[in-house]
Amino acid sequence: MKIAILGTGMVGKTLGTKLVACGHEVRMGARDAANEAAAAWAASAGSRASTGTFADASAFGEVVFLCVLGEVATKVVEAAREGLAGKILVDLTNPLDFSEGMPPKLFTSGSDSLGKRVQAAAPEARVVKALNTVSCNVMIDPASVPGDHGLFVCGDDADAKARVLSLLREDFGWRVIHDLGPLAMARCTEGYLPLWVSLYGLMGTDRFNVAVQKGG
Amino acid sequence: MKIAILGTGMVGKTLGTKLVACGHEVRMGARDAANEAAAAWAASAGSRASTGTFADASAFGEVVFLCVLGEVATKVVEAAREGLAGKILVDLTNPLDFSEGMPPKLFTSGSDSLGKRVQAAAPEARVVKALNTVSCNVMIDPASVPGDHGLFVCGDDADAKARVLSLLREDFGWRVIHDLGPLAMARCTEGYLPLWVSLYGLMGTDRFNVAVQKGG
Repeated sequence: MKIAILGTGMVGKTLGTKLVACGHEVRMGARDAANEAAAAWAASAGSRASTGTFADASAFGEVVFLCVLGEVATKVVEAAREGLAGKILVDLTNPLDFSEGMPPKLFTSGSDSLGKRVQAAAPEARVVKALNTVSCNVMIDPASVPGDHGLFVCGDDADAKARVLSLLREDFGWRVIHDLGPLAMARCTEGYLPLWVSLYGLMGTDRFNVAVQKGG
Repeated sequence: MKIAILGTGMVGKTLGTKLVACGHEVRMGARDAANEAAAAWAASAGSRASTGTFADASAFGEVVFLCVLGEVATKVVEAAREGLAGKILVDLTNPLDFSEGMPPKLFTSGSDSLGKRVQAAAPEARVVKALNTVSCNVMIDPASVPGDHGLFVCGDDADAKARVLSLLREDFGWRVIHDLGPLAMARCTEGYLPLWVSLYGLMGTDRFNVAVQKGG
């Protein structure tokens, strides 16, 4: 499959490398086509890896992963918007504000969410919120954490959600995925992030996740 | 130990009954001393159960459990304030706003939290945020959910926190308790509640909780 990664940080590089290794063609998009981090990633990831602008990448990908800081998420989606029409846009972003230190605050409140803003920035994209509640090392290697820990996904387009679930299961190895329903539920998973950051400090590793356990 | 319960809803009654069964003297406080729900509870809970106003209850208890709806939490604490000086106040409340349906929104945002507001309403109380991330059935019977699921607690007074941890372990049977640090972390656990409510819908039972699982 042709996949786009928007963002050149650790999350984008980790996902991109894994997706190339799974046999996909992956184009990493950045603000500038000559982005050095993207070029270095593509050089190491092999012949199925390529780079371009955000717009180049979104035009290329059938599935597009949004892997940027929350504060720039809607701007990046606007830059990629034309290519996103009809595409599956997997939104990994979180509305985190680190301006007052740790743990971060959310810059959304009430019924607002970054997932909702991302959808508004590209109304013709089929947004699926996913992977925003674990570190990138866990995203691509869930078996590195023991037990029945799970992912939370939501989105308004049932077909897009089903295709993302398949990719998460088949390429990344996720076994437990909780479908929370419509994209409006993005605020529920984004709201967990300050707790995630606190737990990151307590656990001393980013290789952790929560398992939902249920009694009789 | 002498324990106060502020609130006459399901949470207060469930905790009160369990604490009486553990051998404590428990006084349930309500706005009116003649509250019928409190009287009915005391009649069924046995001779160590009693009732009174919020002020009566807080004057009685060495440890005080705040078990009211988030929207009235600070008003109840203000009513109980005199008796709370120097006392351990276990804050179970969440800043939930159900006015636009499910899942609820938070009525706090940014670095604000209901834990912080509760502390501000009774500056001389030693507030410990705890038990706000599970249903009351799980609070008093954690073994009814399988696995190493845990509680999250925070508070500024180390001695108060240690005494609450002992009570949670010895009387309620909690084995896994994550101490997130100062009371300012209350916003991290309160922020999880919209996700908790979503999961409640998915699980079809209130007997569930999350286990934090960690890789090597």
